[in-house]
Order: sequence, then structure tokens, then C-alpha cells
Amino acid sequence: MARAMTLNPDRLLPPDAATREVARRLYAEVEHLPIISPHGHVPPAWIADDVPFTNPTALFLTPDHYINRILHANGVELSQLGVPVGSDFSEQQSREAWRIFCSHWRDFNGTAMRYWMQDQLCGIFGVDVRPSAETADQIYDQVAAQLATPAMRPRALMESFDIAFIATTDDPCDSLEHHEKIAQDAGFTRRVVPTFRPDKYLEPAREDWNQLVDALGEAAGVAVDSLAGYTAAMENRRAFFKQHGAVSTDHSHADLGTVRLDEVDAASLYDKARRGEASEQECTLLRRWLLTDQIRMATEDGLTLTLHPAVRRGHDTEATRRYGADVGNDIPVKLEVTNALQPALDQFGNHPNLNLVIFTLDEDVFSREIAPLAGWYRSVYIGVPWWFIDAPESIMRFKQSVTEMGGFSRVSGMIDDTRAFCSIPARHDMSRRLDCAHLADLVVKHRLDEDEALDSLLDLVSNNPKKVFKL
Amino acid sequence: MARAMTLNPDRLLPPDAATREVARRLYAEVEHLPIISPHGHVPPAWIADDVPFTNPTALFLTPDHYINRILHANGVELSQLGVPVGSDFSEQQSREAWRIFCSHWRDFNGTAMRYWMQDQLCGIFGVDVRPSAETADQIYDQVAAQLATPAMRPRALMESFDIAFIATTDDPCDSLEHHEKIAQDAGFTRRVVPTFRPDKYLEPAREDWNQLVDALGEAAGVAVDSLAGYTAAMENRRAFFKQHGAVSTDHSHADLGTVRLDEVDAASLYDKARRGEASEQECTLLRRWLLTDQIRMATEDGLTLTLHPAVRRGHDTEATRRYGADVGNDIPVKLEVTNALQPALDQFGNHPNLNLVIFTLDEDVFSREIAPLAGWYRSVYIGVPWWFIDAPESIMRFKQSVTEMGGFSRVSGMIDDTRAFCSIPARHDMSRRLDCAHLADLVVKHRLDEDEALDSLLDLVSNNPKKVFKL
Amino acid sequence: MARAMTLNPDRLLPPDAATREVARRLYAEVEHLPIISPHGHVPPAWIADDVPFTNPTALFLTPDHYINRILHANGVELSQLGVPVGSDFSEQQSREAWRIFCSHWRDFNGTAMRYWMQDQLCGIFGVDVRPSAETADQIYDQVAAQLATPAMRPRALMESFDIAFIATTDDPCDSLEHHEKIAQDAGFTRRVVPTFRPDKYLEPAREDWNQLVDALGEAAGVAVDSLAGYTAAMENRRAFFKQHGAVSTDHSHADLGTVRLDEVDAASLYDKARRGEASEQECTLLRRWLLTDQIRMATEDGLTLTLHPAVRRGHDTEATRRYGADVGNDIPVKLEVTNALQPALDQFGNHPNLNLVIFTLDEDVFSREIAPLAGWYRSVYIGVPWWFIDAPESIMRFKQSVTEMGGFSRVSGMIDDTRAFCSIPARHDMSRRLDCAHLADLVVKHRLDEDEALDSLLDLVSNNPKKVFKL
Repeated sequence: MARAMTLNPDRLLPPDAATREVARRLYAEVEHLPIISPHGHVPPAWIADDVPFTNPTALFLTPDHYINRILHANGVELSQLGVPVGSDFSEQQSREAWRIFCSHWRDFNGTAMRYWMQDQLCGIFGVDVRPSAETADQIYDQVAAQLATPAMRPRALMESFDIAFIATTDDPCDSLEHHEKIAQDAGFTRRVVPTFRPDKYLEPAREDWNQLVDALGEAAGVAVDSLAGYTAAMENRRAFFKQHGAVSTDHSHADLGTVRLDEVDAASLYDKARRGEASEQECTLLRRWLLTDQIRMATEDGLTLTLHPAVRRGHDTEATRRYGADVGNDIPVKLEVTNALQPALDQFGNHPNLNLVIFTLDEDVFSREIAPLAGWYRSVYIGVPWWFIDAPESIMRFKQSVTEMGGFSRVSGMIDDTRAFCSIPARHDMSRRLDCAHLADLVVKHRLDEDEALDSLLDLVSNNPKKVFKL
Repeated sequence: MARAMTLNPDRLLPPDAATREVARRLYAEVEHLPIISPHGHVPPAWIADDVPFTNPTALFLTPDHYINRILHANGVELSQLGVPVGSDFSEQQSREAWRIFCSHWRDFNGTAMRYWMQDQLCGIFGVDVRPSAETADQIYDQVAAQLATPAMRPRALMESFDIAFIATTDDPCDSLEHHEKIAQDAGFTRRVVPTFRPDKYLEPAREDWNQLVDALGEAAGVAVDSLAGYTAAMENRRAFFKQHGAVSTDHSHADLGTVRLDEVDAASLYDKARRGEASEQECTLLRRWLLTDQIRMATEDGLTLTLHPAVRRGHDTEATRRYGADVGNDIPVKLEVTNALQPALDQFGNHPNLNLVIFTLDEDVFSREIAPLAGWYRSVYIGVPWWFIDAPESIMRFKQSVTEMGGFSRVSGMIDDTRAFCSIPARHDMSRRLDCAHLADLVVKHRLDEDEALDSLLDLVSNNPKKVFKL
Repeated sequence: MARAMTLNPDRLLPPDAATREVARRLYAEVEHLPIISPHGHVPPAWIADDVPFTNPTALFLTPDHYINRILHANGVELSQLGVPVGSDFSEQQSREAWRIFCSHWRDFNGTAMRYWMQDQLCGIFGVDVRPSAETADQIYDQVAAQLATPAMRPRALMESFDIAFIATTDDPCDSLEHHEKIAQDAGFTRRVVPTFRPDKYLEPAREDWNQLVDALGEAAGVAVDSLAGYTAAMENRRAFFKQHGAVSTDHSHADLGTVRLDEVDAASLYDKARRGEASEQECTLLRRWLLTDQIRMATEDGLTLTLHPAVRRGHDTEATRRYGADVGNDIPVKLEVTNALQPALDQFGNHPNLNLVIFTLDEDVFSREIAPLAGWYRSVYIGVPWWFIDAPESIMRFKQSVTEMGGFSRVSGMIDDTRAFCSIPARHDMSRRLDCAHLADLVVKHRLDEDEALDSLLDLVSNNPKKVFKL
């Protein structure tokens, strides 16, 4: 017989009775507040075209590299899951993929993926049996049937999830047509904005860098045969994004290096890179300079920067060749912040127009570098623990590490950074529960009064994201 | 008057009443399961010859560098403890050493060594007074008297400890005569197998490397005047170990570096090293290549690899000169995994015949590198926190760090890695108690149902070690 | 209406009822023990001249970079707070600065600064309303009025705080006249001693190094035109400090590097540096050699060394230019200990006359390097988590990390390292509460009996500081 699966209203709250009481009271105050999602990866076309989701595999498995990687480690081929997104995958294959996932349910015990999935299946789709080989078809049918209803289309879900604001992530050359379409629909009032992600245009070491820069020049209508032209093209596209509602730019490089260069040296380095003559070291130097210049631009146009450094992408080259990027084999590396950001912070760190949000995959820098920097520089905000560490215990370690040094005023508040649309409420709810658990602990240890804890909770859930992203 | 010493049945379980109840129920299910010890350092001669232990000093102090190092820091000379093992040490000296240890009992407060020692003294020998200068003789006599009984011989203890499987660690040139003797005794059914530990044969920077390689060639009956010969000799000895029951090989180098080399380049590097002409850098390169080739061999013969990197051995050179290796002054250094293992994992990481178990002394890599790698590559398993960090709080940090990213399916389960024979049950029991504490926390936070927690517990205690070491 | 502010007697103690009971009993045993403060930054003139504090801004804000940095990050100019110390700052400006601080009270929620400030305002000055823009004046007046009373002068506070021993931090060229004045006052029996801090005299890369060395020579009455002279001057000043009661020397460099150099090479390197011809690398080498030689000197004169490495000072160069050093923009960097200290420890690490206390801002080295080193070398003691991490959760992480490897005998006990005079009791009380919380947890997990926990508690609070600093 199938085992039941339910959502306990106290999930993630502290087991200690006195602490739990405080946490419950705090949670009741924020449980139903609107979701602000200032950085993530939901495709804007989904919302623009209100594309219905087809089945649980397409919704939950194929695009989610968190799920894919654990299944891969446990012997599943990514092709069995429909990866890469957009490959030809039949209804029968989707059903089979779902059965594979449900058969591996136990492999997710104790993970964040399990927590989110349970929250979504129970909370959105009313599933009440535990996934297994035996219950896979029943759950598949139940979810698929609901996905076919109007209530489960992206726009209706944005309403029922109460997502007040959501940012997508977009290429600098993107026409932003989807965003335009959404904006022109007066009947849809949820705010959906693009995010400017210029990463690859800042990487002279890429084989396709010259073509990318050419395309950027074309999109901007600016000649890019000099650094001045490149800079003008970037500023042009940032302005275009800002006109379409963008509030931030997003940056993920191998390290956080910034640098101050003489204008002439920078221009000559650019020329060399364009001619394909720059060494690996010079490419890195130029990339760091270009990132530093993005920070300079931000002091002028006011777009917030989110910094997501230090992942080795495509660690498994054969899997990358077969399935493309972002399929689960990106692996974190060490991060250094204090020295890397010094050149840029020394120049711009207290600029009134600048907001920098630093994410990390490296717990080592929580208390050693990120919190101390955010506790001095006005532009620096502590982002959230990112990706592999956006899980309950990791998040609590993060909170307990950075808060004592920086206080609640220096953190960005929850940023989900996800492409898994239906997981957005689960992720924000998880974050709120953990905020409450952390604050309740401060209350029962008599470090805060309960009304103060509530003030800080509201900062985390609402005020800080609005301040940091200038909403 | 002497203070009492007892073992509380709830030791290490969570103090919160509700959580403790869950933990107790879980623990009851695994408390008495057989011990699987797939990697450790018990000398096989002890079991082959069923050598009786002589007195508590010889059993607990002289060979245990965990104990030695704390006593050394607190002013005791290692010679007062009978170090090095095998030195001439009288009954009177042993009794005096035991008194020294008992006088320093307080210095062990809060340590793992204290926990294990209390568990052994109370649990195995029925000691019920707290060690101190005053009680030292009484305890010495009580333990020594019991050690003289047949019930305290190694084989009888293996039965009463219910050790179903134990692996020793052995030199590639070892004749494995002790293992043969054990295997030939039909009356003794506990499984005792060797482990192939080729470390020093992979270190061209060692002064004695040439002699070691010559000895390897001799043991294998293969000429080692070329890399091909060396490789054949290694494969030959691995096969010999496998015939004698070995399930794994063990590797502890200064870093985890692997590398892909052209066959011709590797052969020429080997020749240069054999001529004593390789630079330090070339020696490191060759060592990394030889380790990479051990991984290749493992894909063929199926022996699991355990990787124990990043310790600076013999930090105190004078102590090392006087007392030899492994006496307590090896000190951990930083570890890097993501880039170091990439060349080998890229080539072999998903090979169906390969299992790699990564240990660490560096907590920094728990969530940043090891868990993400194990959450993708099929061959990679998360080992246990090792040596200095195989203590209750450290282990809980480890569990809370790696589980959320990798799940329970990607961890090896308990590996005691000890030479302290009588501590084996205490170590495995500690591990089981902490498994229960961790899982109970997930249950009371409503992240797992209790029956799911039990499933994962059984994986940790029994199923995973059997899977990872192919038992 | 103003909200109340009180001090709960159970603050920081564990919320779990059973654990809290144990912690309360332990705390009762140490709550009122005298404070031993073996390293800190209180100006000796305050005590020598018994200078009255003038107002809460001068007492709590202007000199405290912990407070300053959070206010700076939240938009306050340091000049609004009277920084740098000694700048012209009117009563009206002080009152306004206090209002700014009180208005930002919420920004300190969850920080250590908030905890200490609440403890001081309530515990010393009887403030019972929560700081805010509205209550700022009332609190200012209440504190200022009390500061004007004899009971609030430094010497009276040393009595009421029960500070039995306090060390200041002093320049090697200092005349120590303040200490002499204190010593000559037979009516004041609290022990106040200097600490020898030669940092800058060991940094050949400093622009003013030659002048510093000249000044050192002058102070010592020794020619410093050779390394032998420099060494003699150092030894002379160390002896002078020791005659004035010093028990330790303090060292804060960019890293912990030590080195063994041939005497001739060292002398020649010194000459080169004195001629201004040493490269950056040579300056670093010489600095490491000079630090190593301080350790050698310590084996002779017996002064304990405290090591405070790995901060990037003056990260914000403009702020440093305007406000000077130590105003809140020093940012930690990575620390490496195992290899850095090996040359010195290998030579002196077990010397009976040597005590080294290692502090860190880098949590990464708690369990990986510092505890293992202290668990072997007799001279090495684990200092406290320093500066950014001297906060409740950070301290608990520290305790849970180092204790299991090193035991309680290898830690220095509480060192406040503060210039905030009135925070000394709050900091030591916080430390004692956390000691009790940690030990109570060991008791309820049955790892220690309660009387053993009390033994270790007394070691931490009294015995270890006396042993480590030879009081």
C-alpha cells in the first residue's frame, strides 16, 4: 500500500517547544506576504505566452539540474530524463522518466530537492502519496490533469503564488520582446522585468568572443572596433534593459577579480584581444577590467549588480559535449573576496548609486570576507547562500555566520535564483521559515525582543529586497 | 573517594525530549547490527596468531597517537608511554604510563578520545571508577586481569564485538601470510581481508624510492626497468591482493592531484626519476600520474580506492627522528578537490567498475567540493570526516553539510580507519548514535517520515558500505 | 511610548530546559569570579590619571570601530561620530552622534555589538528604555550624569568590574610612564601591565621603517647599524617591558610566516633593507625572520606571544587617509598556519619557556590547523575567535570545533582584546555564559559529568589564563 505524504505546518521550525512557539508567531506574520523574486532564471516566454506546462517530467525533471545530478550519480542517463531541454521526448518517455524519478525518491532523503518537491507536489497539486515506482503513474496522471487546467498556467500561478515581482535573466543582445509583450498587457499587473547578464561578452578567452562582441555592437548600433565603442555598446544595451524595467545586472566569472587600469593600457589590451593575440593572463586581466567597468557603469545608471563567482563549469567534459551546459556537473571552487574586490570597492564601494550583492558557494567566506565587507562598504550586500548551499542547514549556518558581523540590514533578503517556476513559493517559504527559526533562537536566548525580531523579519522578507534592488 | 564512571544509554542522543524519542527508536533498530569495517589499520598478525593483549598501556596508550599527542602537549615524553611500539618497556613502566594517563584524564575532557576510552573501559572491561592518579592501579589491574582471559583475545573479541568484516592495511610487497593463515582456519568465519596501500611506491621524491620500486619488481617477479614493467608489477600485486580477498586500495598523498600524460612522456619521466634526475616538480607530476594510473587499474580490477589526502607528516622533525612516523605530529593542510581530481574524473568518473571514497581533514571542502562531486560522478562517494575530525560535533557538522547536497546514497557509511582494536565497537556505536541524532532531527523538522529515516539509517550502517566496497 | 530594555538573567543560555538547568548551575559558580584580561587595548593613561569619561559618545561610539563600521555601512559619516579620536567634537555634536546611533539601533539587531551595548547600558548605567531617536536624549543624559560621578571613573570601575589583571598594548619605545605611575600608587592594587607590541619595527616594507628602527635604537641606547645591534635593542626593550610587569608580546602581520636563516644571510638582508634596497620579497623574508627571532627571544625571557595574523588593514584607502587606522575597514584574509609556523615550531615548539597563543579571523583553520598544532606542541595554545568572530554563534562554532581535537587544556581562556573599557565585563560574562552553554551540552549528552564540566569551566575562566600568561 502506498505511504501517505503530507505537509506538516511546522516543517523546518525548531523542535524545542518554547522556541517553536516564537517561530510560529513570527511565521504567521509573513507566511502570506507577496513574493519578491529579484533574481532568477524563469524564461520570460512562459509568462509572455502563458505557455501551459505539459506534464510533471517537463515541469519538474528535465530542466532541473539539481534533480538531474543526483539521478545521474545514481546511474540514470540524462537522456532518460529528456535532457537537454527541447529534445524530442514522447509522452511515454516522460512517463517513464517520472517513474525513474519516483523510484529514486529515497536517494533524495535529506536533500533540499526532496523538501521542495514534497512542498510542490502536496502544496500545489494535492498529491498525498509518497512517490515510488508503484505510485509514479498515479502521481503523473494527477499532476498532468491539473496542468491541463487554466489555473495552472504561468500567469494564473503567478497570481495564486502571489509573486509581486519577478526578474528573468537575459542576454544583452536580446530584443526583450517577451518583456514588451507582458508590459503591453494591461490586464496582467504582476511586474516581470529582465536582468542584464553580460558574462560571456566579458570573457576574451572564449573562442566566440569576437563574434559575441560583434553581435553586441550590432544590437547597440555602435561600432566596437575600439574599447570606447565596446563601452558605448554596453552602456547602450544597459540603457535599453533599464527602459524595459531591468533593475539589475548579473555576473558569474571564475573569480571576483577587479582591477584598475590606465585607459590607454585598457584600450590597447582590448585591441590585442580583438586581434586574437592576448595571452591567457591578458584575457583574465581584460575580463577583470571589463567587470570593474560594469561596476563603474552601475554607479551611473544605478542598476544593482549580483555577483555569482567561483564555479568550474562543465567539469565532466563528455557530459557537457552530449548534453550542453547547466546539466549538473558544474562544481564549486574556492573563493577569495577581500583582495579581489578591493580595487573596485576602493574606487566605488561607498558610491550612493551602487548596490553590489555577493553570492557564494564557498562557506569559508561567510564570516571571513563577505560579512566584514558588507559591514563597512555601503554598496555591499550579503547575498544568499547559493545553489548547492541553498538548503535548510546550510542556510542556517549562513545566517548564524553573517548576521553577528553584519546585522540584518546588510543582507539582500531571499533571492531564489531558480528556473524551476513552481518551486518559487516553496523556496521563499523555506527561507521565511528559516528566518523565523533563526530569529526565534535569538529571542529565546534573550538577544532580541520579539517585536524587534519581527522588525528584522519584515526587513528580510520585504524591505531589504526592495531597498537593495530599488523596487 | 573515587568518582563513579558509567555509560549512559542515551549518550550522544539529542537532549530535546521529542527528538530524543525518535533517536532512541531509530537507534534500537541498528544498535546490534554487525560491524562492517572496510578500512582500518589493525595488524593482521593479531588475528592470525590470536595474540593476547598484555596490559592496558600496550592496548590503549602506546599505539594510539590520538592519546599520545594530547599527553605530549601536556608535557609527557612519548618514551614514558612506550613509544615507539616495540620498544623495550617493562611491566613497571607500563603501570607508570597508565598512571600518567589517568592523571591526565581531565585533559581529555570534551575530546573524542575521552568518549571512546570511557566507552571501552566501562563497556568492555566493566570499569566503574573514573581514571585518576588514585584509581590508576585499580583500573590497570582490572583490565590486565581480563586481558589474560580467553574472552579477550582478538578472535574472541571479533566475535563478541560482532565484527562481520574487517580490512587491514598492507604493503604491496607483503606476503599476506597472516591473511592466508586466517583464511585457512575453517573454524574462524569472520572475514578479514588485506588492503593494498602503495603510497610510497608512488613517491619518486622519496630517497628510498628506487629501492622500493626494485622490491616491488622482485615481489611481482617483473622487471621494473621501464614504466611498462612498473605498471605490470603493480597490476600483478593488486591481483595478488585481490586473490587474497582485498576489496580496496588506500592512498594518502600531500594533495589529490591527478593528471593525463602522453604514454611516451610518462615513460620518459619514469626513466628520469629512476636515474635520480627528476626535479621536485617532475617527481610531483610523476606521482600524480601514477595515482591516476591506479584509478585506471581500479576500473579494470574493480578494487575500490580510498583517498586520504592533505596531511603534513612529521611536522616535528626531532620527534619524528626519535620516535618514528605516526606518533601524533602529523598536521592537516588545506585541500583542493575540484580541480585536482578533474583529469581523472573526466576520464573515469562515471566508469561502472570504479568506486572512489574521498576522506578529508579539511571541513572547508565538505559542502564546496566533495558533496557536489559525489552528487554528479557515479564513482565518487563521500567518505567520513577523518582523524582529527572523527568526533561527535565534527561528524554532525559533516552530516549537516554533505547530506543536503548529496543525499544519503552518496556517502560511504562508517569507516573507522583505526589501529585501536578495542575502539572499533565504540567508534561504530558513536557513528550510529550520531546517524540517529541527525535523522531524528530531520524527522522532528518534518523533512522525513520516521520510516524513511530508518531506511536511510540502514543504508548508512549496512547497505552503503556493502555497495561501496562491493562486499 | 518607549519600549523597555532589560537584561534577562538567562541570556545566551541554551533554550532546552534540561540543558539550561545545568548551564545555570555552572554559571552560578563563575559569574562572580574576578576578570583576568591578559590582552587588550585600553589606554594606560586612563587608569594612570583616572580620567573621567565625559559622555556616552566619547565612551561608546568614537573609539569603537565595531560600532563605527556598521553605522558607516548604513550611511553615517565617521566624522559625525567624532572619528578620529581626539578630533574637536562639541557637546552638541556628541549628543547628535548619540542620536544617530540610537536611530540605527535596529541595524545592530542580531550582532555582538548590540549584545554588549545592551549589557553595558542596562547593567552598568541602569538604562531601561530601548535606544531610539525618541529616547536618545534621555539615555544620553542618564549615562552622562552617571559618568560624572566618582563611581564611574576608570579605577572605580576596575574595582566594581572586579578586574584583577589587565594588560595594555604599548609601543616598544614607550617610556611606560603611565604604568610606572600606576605601580607607584600603593593604594591601587589592581594589576595593570604593559604588552610589548613590536609589529611595525618588524616590517621593512614600511616607508618609515628606518626611522622606526632608529628610534628603537635610541630608546634602547644601542646602535642599530647591524642586525646584532637591532637584536640587542629589541632584547633591551623587551627586558625593560618585563621589568615593568609585561607578561606578553603581541604580533599582527599579514601572515604567520616563520623561517630559519643563516645568521650571515640574515645580517646581510638587514643591511640591505636598512639601505632601502630590499625587494618586496626580501622585506617579507626579513619580517618572517625577525618574527622567528622574537620567538627565540621568548624562549629566553619567557614572555608569552600572542599572534593575530591575516587582516588586510586599511582596505578603504580614502577612509584611511581621512580618518586614520583602525576605523572599521580592516578586512580579514585567508590564513595558513601549518606550514607557516613549521620552521619556528620545529625549532622551539616544545621549549618549556615558550607560550604561543594563536588567534584567528578565519574559521577555516579552527579544526584543520590550530587545534591539531595545539594538540601536539607544548608551546601552542588556541586563542579565542578574534574580532569579527568574537560573537556568540561564532564562539560556539569555535568551541565545538577545537575542543574535540585539543581538549580544554590547550585553550588560552577568554582574551577580550578590546579598547572598549566598559565592555570588558560584558565580554567576559558573554564568554562565561557560552562556556557554560557548551559544557552543559556535553553534560546532557553524557560526555562529561557535571563536576568534570565545572573543573573544565574553572580552567577556562581562571586556571588557563594564569598558566598561559604565567600570572
